[in-house]
Amino acid sequence: MSAPPISRYPVPTLAELPDDIRARILDVQEKAGFIPNVFVTLAHRPAEFRAFFAYHDALMEKEGGLTKAEREMIVVATSGANDCLYCIVAHGAILRIYAKNPLVADQVATNYRKADITPRQGAMLAFALKVAVASSEIGEEDFTAVKAHGFSDEDAWDIGAIAAFFALSNRMANLIGMRPNDEFFVMGRVPRVKQTDPAPRKS
Amino acid sequence: MSAPPISRYPVPTLAELPDDIRARILDVQEKAGFIPNVFVTLAHRPAEFRAFFAYHDALMEKEGGLTKAEREMIVVATSGANDCLYCIVAHGAILRIYAKNPLVADQVATNYRKADITPRQGAMLAFALKVAVASSEIGEEDFTAVKAHGFSDEDAWDIGAIAAFFALSNRMANLIGMRPNDEFFVMGRVPRVKQTDPAPRKS
Amino acid sequence: MSAPPISRYPVPTLAELPDDIRARILDVQEKAGFIPNVFVTLAHRPAEFRAFFAYHDALMEKEGGLTKAEREMIVVATSGANDCLYCIVAHGAILRIYAKNPLVADQVATNYRKADITPRQGAMLAFALKVAVASSEIGEEDFTAVKAHGFSDEDAWDIGAIAAFFALSNRMANLIGMRPNDEFFVMGRVPRVKQTDPAPRKS
Amino acid sequence: MSAPPISRYPVPTLAELPDDIRARILDVQEKAGFIPNVFVTLAHRPAEFRAFFAYHDALMEKEGGLTKAEREMIVVATSGANDCLYCIVAHGAILRIYAKNPLVADQVATNYRKADITPRQGAMLAFALKVAVASSEIGEEDFTAVKAHGFSDEDAWDIGAIAAFFALSNRMANLIGMRPNDEFFVMGRVPRVKQTDPAPRKS
Amino acid sequence: MSAPPISRYPVPTLAELPDDIRARILDVQEKAGFIPNVFVTLAHRPAEFRAFFAYHDALMEKEGGLTKAEREMIVVATSGANDCLYCIVAHGAILRIYAKNPLVADQVATNYRKADITPRQGAMLAFALKVAVASSEIGEEDFTAVKAHGFSDEDAWDIGAIAAFFALSNRMANLIGMRPNDEFFVMGRVPRVKQTDPAPRKS
Amino acid sequence: MSAPPISRYPVPTLAELPDDIRARILDVQEKAGFIPNVFVTLAHRPAEFRAFFAYHDALMEKEGGLTKAEREMIVVATSGANDCLYCIVAHGAILRIYAKNPLVADQVATNYRKADITPRQGAMLAFALKVAVASSEIGEEDFTAVKAHGFSDEDAWDIGAIAAFFALSNRMANLIGMRPNDEFFVMGRVPRVKQTDPAPRKS
Repeated sequence: MSAPPISRYPVPTLAELPDDIRARILDVQEKAGFIPNVFVTLAHRPAEFRAFFAYHDALMEKEGGLTKAEREMIVVATSGANDCLYCIVAHGAILRIYAKNPLVADQVATNYRKADITPRQGAMLAFALKVAVASSEIGEEDFTAVKAHGFSDEDAWDIGAIAAFFALSNRMANLIGMRPNDEFFVMGRVPRVKQTDPAPRKS
Repeated sequence: MSAPPISRYPVPTLAELPDDIRARILDVQEKAGFIPNVFVTLAHRPAEFRAFFAYHDALMEKEGGLTKAEREMIVVATSGANDCLYCIVAHGAILRIYAKNPLVADQVATNYRKADITPRQGAMLAFALKVAVASSEIGEEDFTAVKAHGFSDEDAWDIGAIAAFFALSNRMANLIGMRPNDEFFVMGRVPRVKQTDPAPRKS
Repeated sequence: MSAPPISRYPVPTLAELPDDIRARILDVQEKAGFIPNVFVTLAHRPAEFRAFFAYHDALMEKEGGLTKAEREMIVVATSGANDCLYCIVAHGAILRIYAKNPLVADQVATNYRKADITPRQGAMLAFALKVAVASSEIGEEDFTAVKAHGFSDEDAWDIGAIAAFFALSNRMANLIGMRPNDEFFVMGRVPRVKQTDPAPRKS
Repeated sequence: MSAPPISRYPVPTLAELPDDIRARILDVQEKAGFIPNVFVTLAHRPAEFRAFFAYHDALMEKEGGLTKAEREMIVVATSGANDCLYCIVAHGAILRIYAKNPLVADQVATNYRKADITPRQGAMLAFALKVAVASSEIGEEDFTAVKAHGFSDEDAWDIGAIAAFFALSNRMANLIGMRPNDEFFVMGRVPRVKQTDPAPRKS
Repeated sequence: MSAPPISRYPVPTLAELPDDIRARILDVQEKAGFIPNVFVTLAHRPAEFRAFFAYHDALMEKEGGLTKAEREMIVVATSGANDCLYCIVAHGAILRIYAKNPLVADQVATNYRKADITPRQGAMLAFALKVAVASSEIGEEDFTAVKAHGFSDEDAWDIGAIAAFFALSNRMANLIGMRPNDEFFVMGRVPRVKQTDPAPRKS
Repeated sequence: MSAPPISRYPVPTLAELPDDIRARILDVQEKAGFIPNVFVTLAHRPAEFRAFFAYHDALMEKEGGLTKAEREMIVVATSGANDCLYCIVAHGAILRIYAKNPLVADQVATNYRKADITPRQGAMLAFALKVAVASSEIGEEDFTAVKAHGFSDEDAWDIGAIAAFFALSNRMANLIGMRPNDEFFVMGRVPRVKQTDPAPRKS
């Protein structure tokens, strides 16, 4: 059996890509040891690619009250609610590495109520999931609930905006049939082994 | 009664904004005659603002098999499914103007099956709504259905990507409590009157 | 393009109608300046027409703790939940006029949580929407909630009965494909302009 | 234990009622041997009572392509979808009697796919249930489906209008906590025993 | 018309069955006066039959804080939520007999909020229904709610386990199209008449 | 941090258990190298334990048209639909081993449409999921669909019965808060490494 396609759409070769996009992809490849399929599949549309990763970095690389692991928890939990295979598997791997916890990604993708997380993180995920699946019902009481756990208003924006950005990301992955790289399925599952950070970085 | 707030978050003054963002906003203001609230409310986060509008323009300003009115139809129909007041009202106004049709926005926001649109547009909106509300169930049969109406694979990406981008946009508007400008509610409702195009433009 | 049909069923001419129905319709026409399509499309079944409008008047024209604008808010909010184009558009127009507010109809049809209404009106619409979409779960706590805002038991009946009547009305409009008159889309959107009251009246 | 209340609202005595309403109730009592609670509980609002039963009779007593038993099947199936205890129990009794079938009411209230009914009746109930729970999605294909079983357009109106009227009726019963008379639970369950017809009749 | 089939699958004769299964069925027949169809239809698979009834007896025949009638209430309420005709009708009959109440089964199958049950039983059914339809959301607050009504932790297991077992049972009945015996529809509806207990018993 | 509890209920020691249950557990431990938590947590109720595993073995260890890997696929897909962490993780591990495929479990748990499975297996999972989430809508067309892929009627029973049994199992795991053993998360993810079969076996 030949390898299954990683997208319903044509996947450009690195040589075909604009310089800035190729540079970013080579940078990721160097750090992660392979190229996550989200990069090459979305590169079919360079302008959308640039906006997508600029938005991603603005939310996932910024300073603030959320750790990197917590940001990935939001991605994995909301992608679970949207049944997005690519994001659950790829960001699940990143979450395992950031959290140094081989179990938490599968837990959070399935049911955050049963995950080994803090009550504060549980409140964070409840807020994120409401943005993901019932955003029109968001009200002051939801902000009050996360602020009772020490999150600021800016943190609440971060939580909600990550959920909102992955609402886009999940739909794009489902639309084009984006396939997760095989590497992601096992990455970070054996905690003592040193792993290279696969997360996109600006610098 | 004082004017209701347009966001749960602080709204920057033009003077406070980075030059590129202020320039874009002034450009919109000149064309539309007022500043749509999405610009000043999202400007609270400049990096996210830049990515948001870059993404918006990449999808809404590009060439392709969809007219500008059809792109706005997708926005209005999927925002209706997400109960997003800002996007229904603001993009409903833009749709009325582009389509030169004072009725179609309310029709499409409520129930595209009863709208004065072509069967091809109906198929487009059915595809867009599936991406908006059940993207994990998208399959080859959905592509086949839109292609039977003459849409290309690239058009299908456009349809789905607009639905995906407004999945993000709707959630951000609901998160921050973004309020539509009063001007949008009536804009384009009286077709003979010449109206200025309020849509964001690159050049 | 010829005008689209206003019903899937035959629409009687005024001359064909029983005298009492024709008289009512002429009365409405005189007050509103045009004949709302609900009158002529439902007149296909005279016995049902008479019962429908008798019920409508019993709920919408009666005295009680709800203003006329509040009654229309209930119609618009529950019709929004049922995706009924005719009722959203026609009663949205009536609501704008009664409330002397060009924005409130679109707000309430989409998401009452973001409408420019009082907390009391918000509680009223929450009760109405529960009757509209989950009536089997109505319990004492729902009555307690509206009574905490000063509504009486009889007001609660009014709220619930309007929601119940438009559950019927929305389904009839969707069944027969009732089309809203073009006039309703723009009516009441410019508040200073004097408008004729289109609401059905007994005397 | 005292008898449970039959309504959340005051229930008028016969003496208190307007003559026409009292006459109708006495007529029903004579035929059925008891007064179904829907009559006395809705009589709390005489104007609504009159409209309700006028509407009921216009749909349930008319001539047409549906038998009386089929009309009651629609009531029972859609009331099952709305979890309306009063209508399931009271109209279930009437259905058993009209159909001379002690089993069909419980079957249809739970799952019409497993009921001892004809394929034509199955198509009728599928149409009715779509009007009851997803009326905004009704399209030409739904009319085609019932017409393939020999129903006319007017029959389709009857099917849909009965579903629509009981959307109202179910919500009123749930709103006021209408309790079915004990008599209905057992009526018509032993088919050989002669039973009096409890259905409201005009003449 | 010949009798409708009681299963989509072959139904063994008593003579074909293994001795232990035939003995159990004969025992039930002696007590109930007829053989409930669940016995002969599931006997198509003897190993599954034995496990099914062992599980049933372990939950329904055990000692504990729930009466036999309360156990049947759980069966009927959760089978109502799953639209399982066999279980609603057969266990509804058993519930009427155990509770010596001809009304409670139809009430509980439709809407436990309107049933003639105690607040403690209402809390029991709310817990059972959450296990039946949203078990992943079960949390400590649900245990707290039933314990506030005097249920022990072991009682909560019983409530939840009965709901879980009938999640299986309902799906099997729907899968094979299991038809309730005609006898069950009327059993226990006239309380003064002495009825034989149809419930499976160990000794 | 101490190890999190594996059940909301007391977990018996091996010494406390009846001989037959202890023997089964020791047997599993010898084969798998550890004791899956489902055994010790359900052993809190010996009679239910015996019935549970008898049912499990009757469905999962039998001969028939489904491979062992296919049976586990059904478990994982339906447990995904029920958000049951224990069953997704534990049976996901077993599926990876039986299928000798480190990716298929995460794929099937999230979205079988995107899994590396055959069209026949896709039809099998569509049938199983309908039994899991909408069993009252199962009809002849569903049997026709799986039989078109070569499944027999008995295979269809197997598919549906496994889905039904895990409807029970998922609810029990969610009820008692059953925690998957850490070992399951990584088992079978590196295909070349020889792994011990953790699946319960009779002999």
